[in-house]
Amino acid sequence: MMSVDGEMETPAPPGPTNPIPSPTNPMVTPLLTDLYQFTMAYAYWKAGKHLERAVFDLFFRKNPFGGEYTIFGGLEECIRFIANFRFKEEEISYLRLVMPTCEDGFFDYLRAIDCSDVEVYAISEGSVVFPKVPLMRIEGPVAVVQLLETPFVNLVNYASLVTTNAARHRFVAGKEKSLLEFGLRRAQGPDGGISASRYCYMGGFDATSNVAAGRLFGIPLRGTHSHAFVSSFMSLDEIVDKTLQSYDGSSTCEDFVSLVQTWLNRIKRTNSLHGAFGETNQSELAAFTSYALALPNNFLALVDTYDVMSSGVPNFCAVALALNEFGYKATGIRLDSGDLAYLSIEARKFFGALEKEFAIPEFGKTIITASNDLNEETIDALNKQGHEMDSFGIGTYLVTCYSQAALGCVFKLVEINNQPRMKLSEDVTKVSIPCKKRCYRLYGREGYPLVDIMTGANEPTPKVGERILCRHPFNESKRAYVVPQHVEELLKCYWPGDSGVKREELPTLKNTRDRCMQHLEHMRPDHMRRLNPTPYKVSVSAKLYDFIHFLWLNEAPVGELQ
Amino acid sequence: MMSVDGEMETPAPPGPTNPIPSPTNPMVTPLLTDLYQFTMAYAYWKAGKHLERAVFDLFFRKNPFGGEYTIFGGLEECIRFIANFRFKEEEISYLRLVMPTCEDGFFDYLRAIDCSDVEVYAISEGSVVFPKVPLMRIEGPVAVVQLLETPFVNLVNYASLVTTNAARHRFVAGKEKSLLEFGLRRAQGPDGGISASRYCYMGGFDATSNVAAGRLFGIPLRGTHSHAFVSSFMSLDEIVDKTLQSYDGSSTCEDFVSLVQTWLNRIKRTNSLHGAFGETNQSELAAFTSYALALPNNFLALVDTYDVMSSGVPNFCAVALALNEFGYKATGIRLDSGDLAYLSIEARKFFGALEKEFAIPEFGKTIITASNDLNEETIDALNKQGHEMDSFGIGTYLVTCYSQAALGCVFKLVEINNQPRMKLSEDVTKVSIPCKKRCYRLYGREGYPLVDIMTGANEPTPKVGERILCRHPFNESKRAYVVPQHVEELLKCYWPGDSGVKREELPTLKNTRDRCMQHLEHMRPDHMRRLNPTPYKVSVSAKLYDFIHFLWLNEAPVGELQ
Repeated sequence: MMSVDGEMETPAPPGPTNPIPSPTNPMVTPLLTDLYQFTMAYAYWKAGKHLERAVFDLFFRKNPFGGEYTIFGGLEECIRFIANFRFKEEEISYLRLVMPTCEDGFFDYLRAIDCSDVEVYAISEGSVVFPKVPLMRIEGPVAVVQLLETPFVNLVNYASLVTTNAARHRFVAGKEKSLLEFGLRRAQGPDGGISASRYCYMGGFDATSNVAAGRLFGIPLRGTHSHAFVSSFMSLDEIVDKTLQSYDGSSTCEDFVSLVQTWLNRIKRTNSLHGAFGETNQSELAAFTSYALALPNNFLALVDTYDVMSSGVPNFCAVALALNEFGYKATGIRLDSGDLAYLSIEARKFFGALEKEFAIPEFGKTIITASNDLNEETIDALNKQGHEMDSFGIGTYLVTCYSQAALGCVFKLVEINNQPRMKLSEDVTKVSIPCKKRCYRLYGREGYPLVDIMTGANEPTPKVGERILCRHPFNESKRAYVVPQHVEELLKCYWPGDSGVKREELPTLKNTRDRCMQHLEHMRPDHMRRLNPTPYKVSVSAKLYDFIHFLWLNEAPVGELQ
Repeated sequence: MMSVDGEMETPAPPGPTNPIPSPTNPMVTPLLTDLYQFTMAYAYWKAGKHLERAVFDLFFRKNPFGGEYTIFGGLEECIRFIANFRFKEEEISYLRLVMPTCEDGFFDYLRAIDCSDVEVYAISEGSVVFPKVPLMRIEGPVAVVQLLETPFVNLVNYASLVTTNAARHRFVAGKEKSLLEFGLRRAQGPDGGISASRYCYMGGFDATSNVAAGRLFGIPLRGTHSHAFVSSFMSLDEIVDKTLQSYDGSSTCEDFVSLVQTWLNRIKRTNSLHGAFGETNQSELAAFTSYALALPNNFLALVDTYDVMSSGVPNFCAVALALNEFGYKATGIRLDSGDLAYLSIEARKFFGALEKEFAIPEFGKTIITASNDLNEETIDALNKQGHEMDSFGIGTYLVTCYSQAALGCVFKLVEINNQPRMKLSEDVTKVSIPCKKRCYRLYGREGYPLVDIMTGANEPTPKVGERILCRHPFNESKRAYVVPQHVEELLKCYWPGDSGVKREELPTLKNTRDRCMQHLEHMRPDHMRRLNPTPYKVSVSAKLYDFIHFLWLNEAPVGELQ
């Protein structure tokens, strides 16, 4: 298999000396937003309110996929976006065209804005996160911050969703299996594919088939051949150049085709496999032989074009053993249809029999990859049945997040001009938590996170060893005292604007992936299980609780029953 | 409401004098493919097979969303892709890095290739299409055509899926309603959003909120304001500049704020509304007034921030009637929560009462837009309940194709070196139809399409008035004679390569949308209905049928029961 080391291609992270690059997708521009952000900006500007300092929270309300956790993805792209936020003249011209009644002064204002007076505090990308807790807190002139709403939510929603999906696949597959993302062709458009590759890697996949993503993000690549390759061959006669140099270069096989045929006959005569197969498909054998001649170091064959056990596996083994004679170690097989559990077990037996028969160490461990419409549920079912697969290639269900295709991140005003604001709703799950806030994760004695707590921005930081009352934001009877063994402040400064605060560096993708793996490892197992996971607790301080309910009563209309 | 005329911004279509532009998303490059396309290309090249002429079909196997039709989208992007298909030197360098064992000659070969010897025949974009019939037939050197597989399938899958989803929403909403696509923030990444806007318009939506898509494709734009805008105001005192020039410029209202308050009182005293509401929310009133002062020609208010009937609608009407006094016609309201059917009916009554009370013609017809997690099912349910909405803003469920997030387009080898090939499978729905084919749509007496038929490329074209045997490709008992009144050849030449055939022009998006609307209109209604639609018939000629089954028997292994 082809691969490129994860580190090698990763671009240097932006730092004090590296300017922050533009968003990965050049289509992410200040126009990638909803028209109403501009009509609102104009109304703010007309009312002279556009510079009022506003604080917005970006958060989601419910974990996806019936689970009790989410992984935060998309932060780096948001920071790249604001770091390069500027209108081009042709963008202004287009806006003038679609907003013909707006005054010239407004367009002059747009021409001048950037994000130098915006501050973004965020949870680190790759962290395990929970509903209601802000993933990002964005503060700045209300008109500018409104313009960021749509692109931020767009950049975070799918990134977090697909990272979480990948993490769930990793959880069910276990740490030992190799997970390959094969989704490009079924993804929702070109950068649905490219983003999927990136965020699936972040969420715990090992490699992708997507060459563009490999190049952009330094993700290891994997690939073999398709059914079309197998079908494109007719017979062994097509192979003209039959020579193969040995792995160490010391000798040359003059007729590799004959050697493969010899091995096929030897396998056929193997006692323990007696009668296991008859005539194998010769065009398949030709395709495998040809592929091995081209890529002897990376011989991985798709074995289900005709019939896995009576053609594909024997043909693969004939080529693999011929390669072995010249010092090459075949990589493995891929199963893309049929009863994967059964076929993997049969194939493993076949490999084992040959290891024994021909005394070829490790041949029984030849890699078996499966790749037919797999998802979390099918992997779980395969595990329960028992199987012999080493590696899963996952596409459609992973990258389109088929079982839940959207995450509902929102972007809500929580404070303007130092006045806390809250969005009311008859549906209590849709009520937003007001005030500019700080957020902490409190850890217990066993090292697990116990609860996330939100406080007003000016409340003192919870201290280790202190008894802290954590209240459910809306349910008065749900509350608990916690004495944290460790307190982690969640929102860090990723874009200080002109505040002078030190900016957090954007880590490499590999480092973000490591953080994610580490975070997942340190969660209490009952939050993570697939069936009936325990909800993780999200709370507010006693002071914030009181304030929320004071504001709520103040703003909610008193109904009149008629 | 802001809008830009659909035609105005549409770039000139590529034609003999206009070169075909690059793909809309600059990330669509020859590297946007699976690694195995390159490993196969290398194996073909090593075997000297890379120039063998191959024919591939791109098709899907099952209509999405439980329906019996699909709209074909994505063709223009595929043609843009091949028209500009060339490797850049830095792309070659990356490939060398990830394929270190490949010979230099292969990279020289890649450096030289383009799509000048590839031919693409396709069904016109925006057409109604059906399973198994090739949407595209791609012919060329096998190694090059393989490289196109992943990008083509990626570009067609989501485009066709979301266009179909949009068409289904249009079907259930009816022709009279205005359909607005509001999905950018929830889409699967930035160009999930941009593509959704484009293809939803193609499938029958009227406008989008996505400014970038409006600019790229000339789609009309729509937008108003959000809850945050409403919450950002505290009271009417915030409004400093209270003047409003009349629509015709002949007079000026010096204190629009007072005028709005006067109207609110007059509405409150309206007999037929007596006691309908008490004190409305003043910060909401301030937000509406401020928005109207900024955009008096486009006053559309989101009325559910506090309470629709006791605050939002009365506040809207006060501002609308004040605007009316100075010659402006308010656009309408948007409902984003609650019981939409009930609220729309109540709001409509309210508008009607004011039309009567103040003799303001058409005020009862003020536009009501709804936009809370709508989809095909909820619109259908609203229709059954009865409602007064004129317009639907649809996001998440539309753009992520939530009810089915992927279409399964595939790309199968059907002929190489003039030898027909077929992909066998134990699952008959996965067997591909071999041979380079031509495809026709046969129309009946009533003008409806009756059946699609595939024939070998060299068979004579079916003729009007001739009795034609149409056979199910795999089920021998399913066949029918058809005497077509009209015969339409489906696959047209969109990329002639060096064949000298005239290339079909790529139409504008507006024209493709028109074709789509026309096609949908001309389908027999029972294929289109939501509940138990009749499958449309897809067939093969008698000759092709016989050949398929000859080849099948020839290639399929004969099992041995043990």
